[in-house]
Amino acid sequence: MTDYDIIVVGAGHAGCEAALAAARMGVKTLILTLNADHIALMPCNPSIGGPAKGHIVREIDALGGEMAKNIDKSYINIRMLNTSKGPAVHALRAQADKHKYQYEMTKVLQEQENLDLKQTIVTDLVIEDNIVKGVKTITGVTYAAKKVILTTGTSLDGRVIIGDVKYTGGRQGEFAAIDLAKSLKEVGINLERFQTATPPRIDKSTIEPKKMTLHPSSEEPLKFSFFREYEGRETRPCWLTYTGEKTREVMVENIEHSPLSTGIVEGSGPRYCPSIDRKIMRFPDKLTHQVFVEPEGLYTNELYLNGLTTSMPEEIQLKVVRSVPGLENAEIMRPGYAVEYEYIPPYQLKPTMENKVIAGLYTAGQLNGTSGYEEAAAQGLMAGINAVLNLKGEEPLILKRSDSYIGVLIDDLVTKGTNEPYRMLTSRAEYRLILRQDNADLRLTPIGYKLGLISEENYNKVEAKRRAIKENLAKLNEITVTPTKEVRELLEELGSGGLKKAVSLATILERPEVSYKDLKRFSPEAPEVDEEVGEQLEIETKYRGYISRQLKQVDKFKYMEEKKIPQDIDYHQLTNLRKEAREKLDNIRPISIGQASRISGVSPADISVLMIYLEEMQRGGEE
Amino acid sequence: MTDYDIIVVGAGHAGCEAALAAARMGVKTLILTLNADHIALMPCNPSIGGPAKGHIVREIDALGGEMAKNIDKSYINIRMLNTSKGPAVHALRAQADKHKYQYEMTKVLQEQENLDLKQTIVTDLVIEDNIVKGVKTITGVTYAAKKVILTTGTSLDGRVIIGDVKYTGGRQGEFAAIDLAKSLKEVGINLERFQTATPPRIDKSTIEPKKMTLHPSSEEPLKFSFFREYEGRETRPCWLTYTGEKTREVMVENIEHSPLSTGIVEGSGPRYCPSIDRKIMRFPDKLTHQVFVEPEGLYTNELYLNGLTTSMPEEIQLKVVRSVPGLENAEIMRPGYAVEYEYIPPYQLKPTMENKVIAGLYTAGQLNGTSGYEEAAAQGLMAGINAVLNLKGEEPLILKRSDSYIGVLIDDLVTKGTNEPYRMLTSRAEYRLILRQDNADLRLTPIGYKLGLISEENYNKVEAKRRAIKENLAKLNEITVTPTKEVRELLEELGSGGLKKAVSLATILERPEVSYKDLKRFSPEAPEVDEEVGEQLEIETKYRGYISRQLKQVDKFKYMEEKKIPQDIDYHQLTNLRKEAREKLDNIRPISIGQASRISGVSPADISVLMIYLEEMQRGGEE
Ligand SMILES: Cc1cc2nc3c(=O)[nH]c(=O)nc-3n(C[C@H](O)[C@H](O)[C@H](O)COP(=O)(O)OP(=O)(O)OC[C@H]3O[C@@H](n4cnc5c(N)ncnc54)[C@H](O)[C@@H]3O)c2cc1C
Ligand SMILES: Cc1cc2nc3c(=O)[nH]c(=O)nc-3n(C[C@H](O)[C@H](O)[C@H](O)COP(=O)(O)OP(=O)(O)OC[C@H]3O[C@@H](n4cnc5c(N)ncnc54)[C@H](O)[C@@H]3O)c2cc1C
Repeated sequence: MTDYDIIVVGAGHAGCEAALAAARMGVKTLILTLNADHIALMPCNPSIGGPAKGHIVREIDALGGEMAKNIDKSYINIRMLNTSKGPAVHALRAQADKHKYQYEMTKVLQEQENLDLKQTIVTDLVIEDNIVKGVKTITGVTYAAKKVILTTGTSLDGRVIIGDVKYTGGRQGEFAAIDLAKSLKEVGINLERFQTATPPRIDKSTIEPKKMTLHPSSEEPLKFSFFREYEGRETRPCWLTYTGEKTREVMVENIEHSPLSTGIVEGSGPRYCPSIDRKIMRFPDKLTHQVFVEPEGLYTNELYLNGLTTSMPEEIQLKVVRSVPGLENAEIMRPGYAVEYEYIPPYQLKPTMENKVIAGLYTAGQLNGTSGYEEAAAQGLMAGINAVLNLKGEEPLILKRSDSYIGVLIDDLVTKGTNEPYRMLTSRAEYRLILRQDNADLRLTPIGYKLGLISEENYNKVEAKRRAIKENLAKLNEITVTPTKEVRELLEELGSGGLKKAVSLATILERPEVSYKDLKRFSPEAPEVDEEVGEQLEIETKYRGYISRQLKQVDKFKYMEEKKIPQDIDYHQLTNLRKEAREKLDNIRPISIGQASRISGVSPADISVLMIYLEEMQRGGEE
Repeated sequence: MTDYDIIVVGAGHAGCEAALAAARMGVKTLILTLNADHIALMPCNPSIGGPAKGHIVREIDALGGEMAKNIDKSYINIRMLNTSKGPAVHALRAQADKHKYQYEMTKVLQEQENLDLKQTIVTDLVIEDNIVKGVKTITGVTYAAKKVILTTGTSLDGRVIIGDVKYTGGRQGEFAAIDLAKSLKEVGINLERFQTATPPRIDKSTIEPKKMTLHPSSEEPLKFSFFREYEGRETRPCWLTYTGEKTREVMVENIEHSPLSTGIVEGSGPRYCPSIDRKIMRFPDKLTHQVFVEPEGLYTNELYLNGLTTSMPEEIQLKVVRSVPGLENAEIMRPGYAVEYEYIPPYQLKPTMENKVIAGLYTAGQLNGTSGYEEAAAQGLMAGINAVLNLKGEEPLILKRSDSYIGVLIDDLVTKGTNEPYRMLTSRAEYRLILRQDNADLRLTPIGYKLGLISEENYNKVEAKRRAIKENLAKLNEITVTPTKEVRELLEELGSGGLKKAVSLATILERPEVSYKDLKRFSPEAPEVDEEVGEQLEIETKYRGYISRQLKQVDKFKYMEEKKIPQDIDYHQLTNLRKEAREKLDNIRPISIGQASRISGVSPADISVLMIYLEEMQRGGEE
């Protein structure tokens, strides 16, 4: 069989990005997947984005990934969340036509040069002297490759759980990867067990929309990708309803049937996407929980019950669903279920996503202990990029926590590991006023361009935007507004306070009540700009103080990040370090003092010891 | 859980028709399937129709089934085959957009009143005193029902085979039904093993179309359904190429690796859709075999290799594919494979599709030992109809061999059984000049209407057509054409022989060279008719002789079919019958002398004995 530079195993969200990145960077790539009809399948909510996740999607886009474009082609409901809050937490969220999302991604994969797509079951890695050499499939075929990227999601030794029933399966209707799990353990990779669950899907013709609150799609021309024009779209509404006393009663009465009570579930589940079982167990007195009733596509009656995740026995699921206003007569089309699976605790990875034990083996996605399509896609993209860079003998791409949510994600994983399915949250980012969803292009497109993942044209567009922001900000600072009667009246009209002395247009724009489009009224010289540029000018002026403070913190942070630690250091010889720190450092092998300082169990005192040692080493080296 | 009148297990081609028919006939119906994303999946060629199969599709349509409408909504290439031959074998064949076919059917199911759709794995039948009471699912849920229709295709104890590898699976990427197979055996249903296989799918971007013959879609406004308007359509071409010496060499060299040689395959395979392995084994000297390269959809690069079915090891599949002109550089996206499965030898069924041992249990589709989507759909429709009729205490619907291909299909199955996957062929029908694809509406719509499956409007349309044919035929017989100079010149122009004496317009139309639209030129009185009516008038006149001969045969046949045999007859007491005949008759329990006479092992002498006995019985009854 043909040899490849890179083989990607799995065509979920991680696998698609990994394979596309590799092929687009010009290396011969193969993607293998269980079922070629299930590419980019969304086994849980067919929704992309939301707080922090939406940020990741835009970052993927800025780096040249596919997820943003794909959801733009296939969404049927889109909204900007948190618009009443600051720009750091504004977040785009879209509901996809689940099938269209799959097809559009399938089409992109199929049409990608340098990329072959094949349906098969991978059972083994081919490894020689701890270096990956390829993969073996269930039919005995071996494909050779220089790098292998595993993105098999929840399939490793997967088991589906509903009520007290548990059967082998990677997710509903897909095979589990039993042999592959064995093969990983054999080469010394440590696997642990997690669990995740999905709510029942119900039949649209059996709900009563009038009892719920309508959430139509936004009428704004919203989109995720910086690089695709907005297209009109047929949309579908969501509905909001709430659990109440009745739901609580049903749940409390039946809680002993929950797989979480019976102990049939072994792995830990996601804290930030808890099942209704867990919600009731944790807060037995809380009556109301939101339930978003969301469409799965244009051509299907299936509705997703966001908020009612459960793996209770089916009869009880039906009772729970019917206890919610608007769903009293609902019919379940697919019951909710949990899936329990093995993951690779991510302390076993380098920040490049390469495995520490097996050279050339990269892993990405749910397999690394995360949860969520966006988190998976981001890792896939980074694994794909780094596998190619390594192949070409180039410097790896390691995004910093101050660059991007993707940087935060990977740093968290490899530095702290995770003992529950890891999900991105805005609160995980220290510099979230800088890591906004609206400026991901400004932050990351130059990197994507350098990698060859962003076209010259798109790169130029972003750079033009950057220049426009800079030049127009300078203009706004130069143009003066004097407190004439007209100006004062205008401010009053906008509901803003008085003006005593002449100020710059920028200072006017700082006021929360004044938006960019008002500026023309204050001064005819106010520059005409694109909407996107105007948005940046508003944010940069209105949040000037916060942003500059955060930038200073970033400088300090960068200083620590740039203190590199050699990878061949023998921590056991650093007897001045506490034993726990020695072990943790040896295990994680941080690449910088910054990373070392975030390892739990490594104290500031340990960091000082380490820094002194590094300085001595360096001086020794210089002598 | 809710109780149902009818539960259909499986949403393949049989299951969809069964469930729709039942729900449309007004009973509360539930359809259960392994994966709600795989409804009406075409695991083999995404094509509907062809000789005999196309006839079945039109018959399904005339009875009020869905297949014809669904392929009309989703085809991407359509042609009328055999147009150079007589009208009995004209056959419509279309290539579907595989995914669109699924969605359109999914939508129809979802929107059907009285029909619930749920995703689950059925593991057991609930049976009391040999009467079916419902089904049990893997999660322990029981759904009660008055009738159960099983349509689980190839999933019973299914195993996927590629080369020397064999693993459990209902078909590529789907679970096998192991428990359900066990449950059937336990209640005394006999299962046997069959096998079927599918060719590899290749990547369109790797073929060389110039080396092959282009087969574009027809430009005529073709469609399957009598009851849906033609819509314009984006189409895709097919290509024709041939195997040659190189293919033969590869095959002969590697034939020992074929699962058919190694003996890894246990079941018998389809004779009329043989794998390339079998073709080479049977005709080792035949060099050229057709290979149609066919698209799987508008949005996919996958191409189906019609003619290259094989379950050889993957490396060899690649060699075989690449030995064919136009495919020298082809990349395989999914390897071909065989699936081996248990089926219910259909002598265990009544002509209503009800099981003889378990009352209320109906089976349909591949599960009954057939092969092909159309054969499955037809059985599903008939099982659905008969389950409802039985539920309502009405007479069953048993189509005769002289009514329809569907009648032939079911009579063959229940009377003769089958020891290889049964496929419909025009040669199986005795009265094929009557059972044309163009007159399925005239033959069957009144039945569909009586069942409530055809709307008043559509029924009236067909009856209007029938009247138009009759009236205009009468007119054509009345209108006289005299052999004027003009008429003789006209005949010459059309390439038809001379005319000596005055004849009717009908006699003119009998000539093969004269088509309906020419008649106006022979006589201004020639009636203006619809194209469909014109077609019938042509066929009825041109084939008048053959048709009336066949109608006479049908009369004789009907006489025998109408001699009913009571179902409680004790054949073992009929000591005048030969032992073999007694056993066969007892086993099959034919409903008529006609059916009895078709049982293999029952001789004309046995039939005489049986007829005498029946007459005596009747006389006895009358006394
Ligand atoms: C039941 C369930 C509930 C979930 N609930 C949530 C939730 O509440 N919130 C949330 O954010 N996320 C949830 N998710 C997680 C979300 O679906 C995943 O995080 C995301 O799909 C992970 O993407 P991935 O690319 O890592 O893996 P996947 O999308 O799972 O893709 C894995 C791919 O690997 C392929 N594959 C597997 N084994 C093999 C093999 N041996 N050979 C070849 N190919 C193979 C598969 O066919 C598939 O293409 C849930 C997932 C499931 C299954
Ligand atoms: C590999 C392969 C090759 C084939 N080759 C040919 C060919 O060359 N020529 C040809 O004419 N035909 C071929 N066929 C056959 C054709 O696909 C079938 O005849 C047709 O699909 C049968 O329709 P069906 O409705 O009987 O079954 P299917 O279409 O198989 O549908 C069965 C349904 O039952 C469901 N199901 C199964 N078990 C359970 C369960 N326990 N609980 C709930 N639901 C269940 C499945 O999910 C599915 O929806 C091939 C099929 C396969 C798999």
